[in-house]
Amino acid sequence: MGNTVRFGISLDEKLLENFDKLIEQKSYMNRSEAIRDLIRASLVEERLGSEDQQAVGTVTLVYNHHVRDLADKLTEHQHSHYEQIVSAVHVHLDAHNCLEVLIIRGEVKVIKNIANELIGVKGVKHGKLVLTTTGEDL
Amino acid sequence: MGNTVRFGISLDEKLLENFDKLIEQKSYMNRSEAIRDLIRASLVEERLGSEDQQAVGTVTLVYNHHVRDLADKLTEHQHSHYEQIVSAVHVHLDAHNCLEVLIIRGEVKVIKNIANELIGVKGVKHGKLVLTTTGEDL
Amino acid sequence: MGNTVRFGISLDEKLLENFDKLIEQKSYMNRSEAIRDLIRASLVEERLGSEDQQAVGTVTLVYNHHVRDLADKLTEHQHSHYEQIVSAVHVHLDAHNCLEVLIIRGEVKVIKNIANELIGVKGVKHGKLVLTTTGEDL
Amino acid sequence: MGNTVRFGISLDEKLLENFDKLIEQKSYMNRSEAIRDLIRASLVEERLGSEDQQAVGTVTLVYNHHVRDLADKLTEHQHSHYEQIVSAVHVHLDAHNCLEVLIIRGEVKVIKNIANELIGVKGVKHGKLVLTTTGEDL
Repeated sequence: MGNTVRFGISLDEKLLENFDKLIEQKSYMNRSEAIRDLIRASLVEERLGSEDQQAVGTVTLVYNHHVRDLADKLTEHQHSHYEQIVSAVHVHLDAHNCLEVLIIRGEVKVIKNIANELIGVKGVKHGKLVLTTTGEDL
Repeated sequence: MGNTVRFGISLDEKLLENFDKLIEQKSYMNRSEAIRDLIRASLVEERLGSEDQQAVGTVTLVYNHHVRDLADKLTEHQHSHYEQIVSAVHVHLDAHNCLEVLIIRGEVKVIKNIANELIGVKGVKHGKLVLTTTGEDL
Repeated sequence: MGNTVRFGISLDEKLLENFDKLIEQKSYMNRSEAIRDLIRASLVEERLGSEDQQAVGTVTLVYNHHVRDLADKLTEHQHSHYEQIVSAVHVHLDAHNCLEVLIIRGEVKVIKNIANELIGVKGVKHGKLVLTTTGEDL
Repeated sequence: MGNTVRFGISLDEKLLENFDKLIEQKSYMNRSEAIRDLIRASLVEERLGSEDQQAVGTVTLVYNHHVRDLADKLTEHQHSHYEQIVSAVHVHLDAHNCLEVLIIRGEVKVIKNIANELIGVKGVKHGKLVLTTTGEDL
């Protein structure tokens, strides 16, 4: 982190009142922290729009482990991308359903391709990709 | 609008630099205006999460006007909700395709139901609902 | 529209039951129409991901018309893009607040730039862009 | 899983052609699997809209571990919700930045509250919540 700078912003009183309520509800410590989060979120969103940006993705998969060969196929897919898939965590949801979260690092377009491959495997009930920042310059 | 108040926020220098670039790219006049927009967007998002909030919705429909009875059905649906549907605008996209934007006012759940009804009409190729604020207290 | 083709899909019974409930709730006439809509939505989403795709955008703006020069600035911005802005519809929300929906046609990146310009105007309380298809090949 | 049923759907030829291209690009094995995924996604989206639905959430946090007391605070927050937070995985992004993914199980509104608490901690640069299904009845 670099130096901290300070500047003022002006706001309608009523708007600030409503924002203060939201801040409390969202458990922020103070306005600065809440506004920094809004600023960082807008920067992250902008960056993740370009396909060659370095990013981190988490893919959440829900699947039925009884489906024939499913676990093997998922493992195989993951190993063929072992350089990008940093880590995986597995949760047993019930007697049938598993949840797996994979953390993938690389260019936005590479992350999207790997996520599509995994979500497309037969037996995966639901899959979602979330892109986030590598944290640099934020 | 009520009184304008002013307060300071502190920020990492590097983060501010990146935000200033984004502000310029997004054509904002100054930081205050950009931050006010982030604050208002977060409030609107929060409010629209509750189903009984008063809101305005715009439904964008794309359809092929050659599909039998489609235009009649859309008109009928709209008239059965004439108290909520404030206005509609129509654009001829090409020889076959039409775009229609409807502005709906009411509770979030009422707006969603009307939008679903319209999007579900046979022949509607694509439909999207956007919810926004009635502007009060922002 | 071209020829209609027919094909079969297989599904778990329980999943189909749940889908049928959703179809009814969303006012679809039948399964084919509901599935066509899911298919078209997935195609539209895919296409709108590329910045040079031809598309239609609707920008919904909420603003306070008492803010000095705001209406003039919005009009000016719109005229400088008169070739892309197809149409605009205006609704008086209350004594202070206006809603304006603009329909913009062009490449995705052009639409986004125009939308950002308009949303960034001082006094605009909330703005949202929705991208949709021109309807071709769907 | 219960019995498998089969039914036919009719579609415009051109639309099917475009969908087949998307299916290939997204690495699906066949149309049935792709359509099942669209159906499941629409059901999941519908369910997660109600606040008292049982669900699983993954919260992705990016933070700078040099920020004073941050790691302690995150750990404390997590322990006060140990019944809902099933698991956590940690990745060292670079010398300063950490990524942590938490898997939370419970009602949608409980998951959202825990996520907001964690994202609001000072020093967390970016946080995102993804809600998914527990896999039942899909």
